[in-house]
Amino acid sequence: MNVMHISDVPTPALTVDVTAMGRNIATMAAFFKDGACRLRPHFKAHKTPEIARRQLAAGSVVGLTCATVAEAEVVAPFCQDILVANEVVTPDKCRRLAALARTARLTVAVDSTAGLEAVAAAAAGAGVSVHVLVDVNVGQNRCGVAPGDQALRLARAVHASDAVVLDGVMGYEGHVQPMAGRQAREEAARKAMQGLVATAELIRSSGLPCGIVSAGGTGTFDISGRVTGVTEIQAGSYVLMDSDYGRLDLPFEQALFVLGTVVSRPSADRVIADCGHKACSKDHGLPSVEGIEGAVVAGLNDEHATITVPADSRLKVGDRLRLRPSHVDPTVNLHDVLYAVDGERVVGVWAVEARGYKTEREGLRLA
Amino acid sequence: MNVMHISDVPTPALTVDVTAMGRNIATMAAFFKDGACRLRPHFKAHKTPEIARRQLAAGSVVGLTCATVAEAEVVAPFCQDILVANEVVTPDKCRRLAALARTARLTVAVDSTAGLEAVAAAAAGAGVSVHVLVDVNVGQNRCGVAPGDQALRLARAVHASDAVVLDGVMGYEGHVQPMAGRQAREEAARKAMQGLVATAELIRSSGLPCGIVSAGGTGTFDISGRVTGVTEIQAGSYVLMDSDYGRLDLPFEQALFVLGTVVSRPSADRVIADCGHKACSKDHGLPSVEGIEGAVVAGLNDEHATITVPADSRLKVGDRLRLRPSHVDPTVNLHDVLYAVDGERVVGVWAVEARGYKTEREGLRLA
Repeated sequence: MNVMHISDVPTPALTVDVTAMGRNIATMAAFFKDGACRLRPHFKAHKTPEIARRQLAAGSVVGLTCATVAEAEVVAPFCQDILVANEVVTPDKCRRLAALARTARLTVAVDSTAGLEAVAAAAAGAGVSVHVLVDVNVGQNRCGVAPGDQALRLARAVHASDAVVLDGVMGYEGHVQPMAGRQAREEAARKAMQGLVATAELIRSSGLPCGIVSAGGTGTFDISGRVTGVTEIQAGSYVLMDSDYGRLDLPFEQALFVLGTVVSRPSADRVIADCGHKACSKDHGLPSVEGIEGAVVAGLNDEHATITVPADSRLKVGDRLRLRPSHVDPTVNLHDVLYAVDGERVVGVWAVEARGYKTEREGLRLA
Repeated sequence: MNVMHISDVPTPALTVDVTAMGRNIATMAAFFKDGACRLRPHFKAHKTPEIARRQLAAGSVVGLTCATVAEAEVVAPFCQDILVANEVVTPDKCRRLAALARTARLTVAVDSTAGLEAVAAAAAGAGVSVHVLVDVNVGQNRCGVAPGDQALRLARAVHASDAVVLDGVMGYEGHVQPMAGRQAREEAARKAMQGLVATAELIRSSGLPCGIVSAGGTGTFDISGRVTGVTEIQAGSYVLMDSDYGRLDLPFEQALFVLGTVVSRPSADRVIADCGHKACSKDHGLPSVEGIEGAVVAGLNDEHATITVPADSRLKVGDRLRLRPSHVDPTVNLHDVLYAVDGERVVGVWAVEARGYKTEREGLRLA
């Protein structure tokens, strides 16, 4: 089957508006072009090399951020500076991480001595240097050591280890990202970054290296990215966007859509489309319907979207529609490919290469 | 990498307790062994041929139910009687459906004349007969025509079409499945089934064939499956189960678990594991922690589970834990493989072959 027109795309499917995406990439690159703070786009948002290559090519970018070792394995062929902004603690994953350090500058987050020892053992075993950022809890209350003395203690342990290199600190202000009010978001992000930057200064004043201070996301890129001392921003969602970030005052456009087909119009006020929550994550709430007056998603089941419509709506069986997902990352993670579209023309079928956990890549088999 | 012990399985991953699963399959087969009503297990719950083969081998089973044409394509090599219990309306999907009718008895749900015409055109084009069930709304208010006259009108249209064969009706009482109280569930299921059976009688009394009355799910298998006139039950979740169905008084055991690793213990009362909502769907709520006293999942992010624990918990970085997912279908759909385990021993690595939308199977490429 050849695909050249959007009407040839089998539904449900994800489409990417390449023009809108290009503008998002350019807008973000322009913001970081003075170089005081750099961008390290988060690959987890889309898991798609064709998009990551465009982010790298746009400039102002120091490398890529990944959430898992498997994502890092996917970007390693085309990216030489990778941050796994997450804790990696098991021997198998640490070995895979260390293997990547043979060809890339590879940095990982650490928030425990047990985690540090696991990374260091793998690095020593592989004969490579793995760079480390001490992960600091800046208020999200997920991973991370406390700012200040606790972070300093872990930094000392990292610096004392032969097999790893202390590069600095990271702290993700994830709790701040969704705050809709600009002022509240600014205050919360600055407070989080002040604690992170002060921790970096404490580490440096103790004679340890701490050149990198990594933080930020799509909701705070222009706040945290202007705090003196912050050197890298890990934003990801900006490139495709979702309706959750769409509530905020951000200079990015929706570039990702779930394409569906109406399979039933059982009553005047209701249509059913083939794009359920196996095609569109609802973990941040229900998606919205793009460009159809009065159409509202009332619910998603596995393979069904129930959409209420005005009684005079002309939507009928076989018609296509587009949903704006509420959360980009888990929605892309449901699909094997993205259809890149320029208007009505399909200009690419891009593999979501890092989708899932790709255990088969490791050649798993029963003994 | 060889896998023989559960400790070799890289996390996050899904494990299937084959003993518990076997008991679930046997329990369900025993219920339907008198043959008045038969079981047609729903493949969408697990999308895994290795599981479907076991369901077919256990007996009392008339064939498989699928939610999509892509699922039907996966089961066609080993199942000769397939119901796509969903509307299929686009020319491309109808062609694929008709192609399957060359080797299987293939039945599809229809709830509109537009949908009927699409299926009939594809069947005529392929020179095959496609069987049809008129989809009746039994109260779920998703797809389906109204019971009674509206269903009869559509049944007449199906019967009048040369390329399709009217087999009967289906009606999914999806709104009844999660009702925790047995009596309320019984009353609601019987009410839904009475409307469906009465519709079947109306169609038969009008001189049309209506031998099949298909309905039911895991929450109603032993209610709807004992209503006189109901001939097939489409239950799926029973084979692996989830914590949502676990609230009900069902004779099935949890056989599916999300295996995770503790990657951080940032405070006495909190551990972070590597199994977030990209590994465990939260569309039916947060998962529960299996077998660890006082441990509660407080939140899931993409790659993180935040779990509160008692301060004296000995859970530490590197330890493994298991989550009981709240919804089996979308959780399995996140993974490429299931690890079949017998105690601590891995006895199979099963492909979730129908995961996602598998557009690559169609050989999509740009023109």
